[in-house]
Amino acid sequence: MNLDAQYSELTLKTNAKLALVVLDGLGDLATPEQGYLTPLEAAVTPNLDALARNSAQGRMIPVAPGITPGSGPGHLGLFGYDPLEFQVGRGVIEALGLGVELKPGDVCARANFATLNPKGIVTDRRAGRIPTETCEKLCAMLAAKVKKIGDTQVIIKAGKEHRFVVIFRGQGLEGPLTDADPNREGFVIPTVRPRDPKSAKQKKMAKLIADFYKAALPIIAKEKPANGFLMRGIAHQPEIPLFEDRYKLKPACLAVYPMYKGLAQLVGMKKIEGPQTIAEQFERYLTEFDNFGFFFIHYKYTDKAGEDGNFAAKKKAIEDFDAALPILLRKKPDVLAITGDHSTPCAVKGHSWHPQPALLHSALSGSDKLERFTETGANSGSLGVFEAKFLIRLMQANAKMFDKFGA
Amino acid sequence: MNLDAQYSELTLKTNAKLALVVLDGLGDLATPEQGYLTPLEAAVTPNLDALARNSAQGRMIPVAPGITPGSGPGHLGLFGYDPLEFQVGRGVIEALGLGVELKPGDVCARANFATLNPKGIVTDRRAGRIPTETCEKLCAMLAAKVKKIGDTQVIIKAGKEHRFVVIFRGQGLEGPLTDADPNREGFVIPTVRPRDPKSAKQKKMAKLIADFYKAALPIIAKEKPANGFLMRGIAHQPEIPLFEDRYKLKPACLAVYPMYKGLAQLVGMKKIEGPQTIAEQFERYLTEFDNFGFFFIHYKYTDKAGEDGNFAAKKKAIEDFDAALPILLRKKPDVLAITGDHSTPCAVKGHSWHPQPALLHSALSGSDKLERFTETGANSGSLGVFEAKFLIRLMQANAKMFDKFGA
Repeated sequence: MNLDAQYSELTLKTNAKLALVVLDGLGDLATPEQGYLTPLEAAVTPNLDALARNSAQGRMIPVAPGITPGSGPGHLGLFGYDPLEFQVGRGVIEALGLGVELKPGDVCARANFATLNPKGIVTDRRAGRIPTETCEKLCAMLAAKVKKIGDTQVIIKAGKEHRFVVIFRGQGLEGPLTDADPNREGFVIPTVRPRDPKSAKQKKMAKLIADFYKAALPIIAKEKPANGFLMRGIAHQPEIPLFEDRYKLKPACLAVYPMYKGLAQLVGMKKIEGPQTIAEQFERYLTEFDNFGFFFIHYKYTDKAGEDGNFAAKKKAIEDFDAALPILLRKKPDVLAITGDHSTPCAVKGHSWHPQPALLHSALSGSDKLERFTETGANSGSLGVFEAKFLIRLMQANAKMFDKFGA
Repeated sequence: MNLDAQYSELTLKTNAKLALVVLDGLGDLATPEQGYLTPLEAAVTPNLDALARNSAQGRMIPVAPGITPGSGPGHLGLFGYDPLEFQVGRGVIEALGLGVELKPGDVCARANFATLNPKGIVTDRRAGRIPTETCEKLCAMLAAKVKKIGDTQVIIKAGKEHRFVVIFRGQGLEGPLTDADPNREGFVIPTVRPRDPKSAKQKKMAKLIADFYKAALPIIAKEKPANGFLMRGIAHQPEIPLFEDRYKLKPACLAVYPMYKGLAQLVGMKKIEGPQTIAEQFERYLTEFDNFGFFFIHYKYTDKAGEDGNFAAKKKAIEDFDAALPILLRKKPDVLAITGDHSTPCAVKGHSWHPQPALLHSALSGSDKLERFTETGANSGSLGVFEAKFLIRLMQANAKMFDKFGA
């Protein structure tokens, strides 16, 4: 039996309340430039400190040692799905990020407007990075004229600058396909092919992409500079076991940004719309407390500050979070986990592979006798350094959701 | 996709310089007899200390919990090859240890001179541990008369006391075979058989061994006490993916002892000959800096002292190493890892399973705020306790050699 099946067999349905609070990109590095303190260590966090004294801590490897995850794999890991087993195509992630409500089986492509010469050779893969408004106008033109290819519905949604997504919705579609992108200038747009030559569904999908090109290219042929487009990461929304079936927990998502709502939706979480700040998210958690067994609460601003390399802003984002935390604690969940989906160190100005710190608090978490929640403290916590996909199993265990294994 | 394939897909070629410095058998135990200090903890190491403050630390499991590795598996793990997946026969390891330059496909056997009675029964498996000079004389006798069996070249090389190796070089040879060794006195030498009865190459190899016995035994039949020999660990040099292909790094080996040069050669590292001391090895690293992307630098004396159970000598070996370290740091590599291939605790007087400490230093390693590099400090490092085969992946990550995984 594989391990997930074993966990399922041991899982008991309870009335426990579990909350997974994600400070995006929380993890950071201690560097001499900042007096060997991480933003979490430099921040004043009385509420996290109070929790820390009665919590277990550890550090989590998002995917595998040294691998830097995007937001997709980062969150799938937190939701307990091995990110190497459940791979989500770039097209799907882009569509989720633009707030598209995907349905199972939808095939998504990440697309770029590009410039072609009269022979069809790509001369600029990004069409001079056209303004977002131009992109929106071109997408509207395409969407108005290409609503269907055969029986398949086509949904076109503009992104930023030259970027957009195309979603194909219909029966019997499947990815992944090769890219309709030469990946450099000076070549024509290649015809897409099935990644698995034996898949009839992928063959059908490749034909659909070719037909889409035939229908769409003439519509923008006289535009300048965006008279063509490229498509990449063409794949279907993967089949992912539903969160509620897998963990016997009814899940809710309290996120502000579309990407995270989309990732939660991918595993079947109920999106709760409305709250715009972490205080509002926590307030809404209080009112929804009786309606769900599992709450995923996402806070974006730690990652944003890390991406900007702005130490002070990341520290401030953590302090703002800490100030709001008492709202959540008015109805303390049976199990509370506070962590990141990955590290976004200010020194890196981007996601990284460094294990993120995790705090686990419950009546049964015990105390690691740490005075604060920090990267350095978490290094010597009782949870050790472990793969992020196990966090939810530890949360379930702390909620007494697992039967004893063996006699 | 398996994890190694995933790593390969994410790997970017860069100009980064990586150095893996191995203090053989570095790890040790804190015991009351030595005031609860390990040799690394007792040693005065100002240069390692200075590095430690700006490094990440952890402890590495050489193979799997509780498994004590030989030098072969220990180093394969450090080179990023799972030692359980890539098993190298004892014959190959022995041949490498004697400095034989193996070619792909060579089949090697570890051999012992032994005493046989007139009925061919083994009466002493080690022929009374004959002196090394006698062994050399007997090997020379065999080598002079048995140069070939059919088309297959036979290479015989003396080791210490009763030990020698036999290498079979030719087309279509393959191991592993069962041993030509009863493993106890009182029995005749068994005929070797293919481990895989379906392998034609193994059958051919078993015939070759039988023919070798027919040719070789008469040559020493009148010697005393070594009038026979046993052969074990008969296997070919396994196919191992080349280091340079696997990691997109051009590798060099700076080792003094033949065994480690041989292991490096097994994965396709370039052996740099000449240096005899760690200072000379570091000096040579400086002059070769521009020619390679990866440097494996091996220091033997920590292991030797551990094998002797000589705490003071092991401490001294570490201090000698530390004194030479500033030479390496004159051209600091982008990523520097300092560790052992396993532990050789003085209290054990041999290799052991205890996780060895590892230090990882780069612009992106962050600081674990540890003042020194020690076993006890490494226990609370951000790298945690991890399998040694992942060290090179962490080194690659620190060298920014991995693309982001997923969007």
